Amino acid sequence: MICVLTGGTGGAKFVDGLRQVTPPEEITLIVNTGDDLLWWGLYVSPDIDSITYVLSGMLSRERGWGVKGDTFLCLQAMGQLGEPTWFHTGDRDLAVHLLRSRLLAEGKTLSEATSTICDKLGVKARILPMSNSRVETRVDTPSGELSFEEYFVQRWYQDPVNSVRFAGASDAEPAPGVIEAILTADAVLLAPSNPITSIGPILAVPGIREALTGARGKVAAISPIIGSAPVAGPAGILMNAQGLPCSISGVAKAYEDFLDILICDTRDAVTAESLRRGSLQVHCTQTIMRTADDKAALARTVLAVAISGLSSDNTNADESAQGGSRPSAASAIIERP
Amino acid sequence: MICVLTGGTGGAKFVDGLRQVTPPEEITLIVNTGDDLLWWGLYVSPDIDSITYVLSGMLSRERGWGVKGDTFLCLQAMGQLGEPTWFHTGDRDLAVHLLRSRLLAEGKTLSEATSTICDKLGVKARILPMSNSRVETRVDTPSGELSFEEYFVQRWYQDPVNSVRFAGASDAEPAPGVIEAILTADAVLLAPSNPITSIGPILAVPGIREALTGARGKVAAISPIIGSAPVAGPAGILMNAQGLPCSISGVAKAYEDFLDILICDTRDAVTAESLRRGSLQVHCTQTIMRTADDKAALARTVLAVAISGLSSDNTNADESAQGGSRPSAASAIIERP
Repeated sequence: MICVLTGGTGGAKFVDGLRQVTPPEEITLIVNTGDDLLWWGLYVSPDIDSITYVLSGMLSRERGWGVKGDTFLCLQAMGQLGEPTWFHTGDRDLAVHLLRSRLLAEGKTLSEATSTICDKLGVKARILPMSNSRVETRVDTPSGELSFEEYFVQRWYQDPVNSVRFAGASDAEPAPGVIEAILTADAVLLAPSNPITSIGPILAVPGIREALTGARGKVAAISPIIGSAPVAGPAGILMNAQGLPCSISGVAKAYEDFLDILICDTRDAVTAESLRRGSLQVHCTQTIMRTADDKAALARTVLAVAISGLSSDNTNADESAQGGSRPSAASAIIERP
Repeated sequence: MICVLTGGTGGAKFVDGLRQVTPPEEITLIVNTGDDLLWWGLYVSPDIDSITYVLSGMLSRERGWGVKGDTFLCLQAMGQLGEPTWFHTGDRDLAVHLLRSRLLAEGKTLSEATSTICDKLGVKARILPMSNSRVETRVDTPSGELSFEEYFVQRWYQDPVNSVRFAGASDAEPAPGVIEAILTADAVLLAPSNPITSIGPILAVPGIREALTGARGKVAAISPIIGSAPVAGPAGILMNAQGLPCSISGVAKAYEDFLDILICDTRDAVTAESLRRGSLQVHCTQTIMRTADDKAALARTVLAVAISGLSSDNTNADESAQGGSRPSAASAIIERP
């Protein structure tokens, strides 16, 4: 079993690779719900949706969110009714929000609603919200405190950020199965997601950091930072706001209490060398995911390093993992046509 | 002021004519809500929607319901999620259901939600739900009791009908403004709607029948029945189930305690003659509404008879009303370009 902590578009891309090289039944995804919002009265869970759409083959890879080929006529009509339209909800996409909202209104938990939707869409991997309690990522800016989606989607992350907090986290509990999945997985992977607002909310749920410390398998994180900049999005601004440098060192620092392996880009080989101290393994590979092959190759390398214990003392180690010869010890690694 | 009791597609057609010949500010519509349903967790009010769409120019005249030019991608996606799809909700149409549902969830009444939606869509006529309490039309059939939309839309009104009841009606109150609108109108018109399931639920709300009896203006009903058949839909079956003949006599009987004027089709001239007894006036005219001109002509005739007191002792009286010369006494009657 592979357990993945994920959120955001970087996480969705990584999961798109992972599904190419691992049977879905062997993947448990623990997904950020700090971005969840009430939109037009519906409960929208952007990161759960993206992962659900990736795994059901419905994701618009062009946009990185929403359903491929979707239309936006309801959105237009909502605009004509004077309702907000900054969060782009497609007509097909609405179906998932409608069903989830109805299930929640009927008293189901977010876990149960997610499981029902996954069943209906033929998703065989297990998608778990980080918590069934409401945890809201709040971004403090000079213009006031914003929800993550207000900061990120509505305002294009243009505001300076003072700090980030996770409202409700201290009272939240991990969703059923989350702790067990982390403790018993053959490897726990932190997707190349924003460490503050995608992985941060998950780690803020009491018990999850402790479980990562006690995990049976290796805990490996893929850095979403290359050099001194994030691959996409506001991770750099948010890491700085939380007192972390925007670099692989900052990523290592964010996860220092539980991280076994840091996967970073080959362009960070020099910095990687300086991080190889104590028990932290650092492995360099090509981490940019442009094509389906890029995604599969990264997933294959990560699994090889995290499960098969492929040596990571040498930055060339990734060559053998990516070079087409499948690591024989990695039984969970398969290639899908 | 003109007050119209309405429901169903016949009602929507009549209102489409009325809006051509009367300033919208002078029209108050009291609309059936007995068909309202929770659909995909949203509160849908089919008759309020149809009237709103007619008056905002959005109605699909081709279908007689929903928004013109609408698409059904969310419906398709709901089908893929295993949700019911028999009630055809378009993507643009959804916007109104979403906004109404959110307003109701925020504690607004159906009246307030309706008023907000009308304002946003530029509807200047006043649309009032018959009640802000939930009144549900229930159709008893050999297969069990069905909601009206289950009976009508899902099962194509193929079930034999034992009886119809209006669950919740005895505890309901008329929505604010309903009684006043009836009492003070220059004329109260009952649209050519199904007397049992479109007008029936309105009359079942305590106080509304009494107000019709005490109305200052004339109360005129347009018959939805011609000969022994309804112009459309299950009105005949339902009238029979409630012990009424399917004829203009049945319509007169359904409204006998308050009706001043019955407008029926010229094809019912003979039966009309037999109904002219006591204080009931019967006026025959062309009631089939195929074109915009048909609709306007019927509305003009009805107003002429109900407001201007145009003689209705003679079935030829409609000639003068339809003949292009506007009745000078009918100040509310204008023709829109």
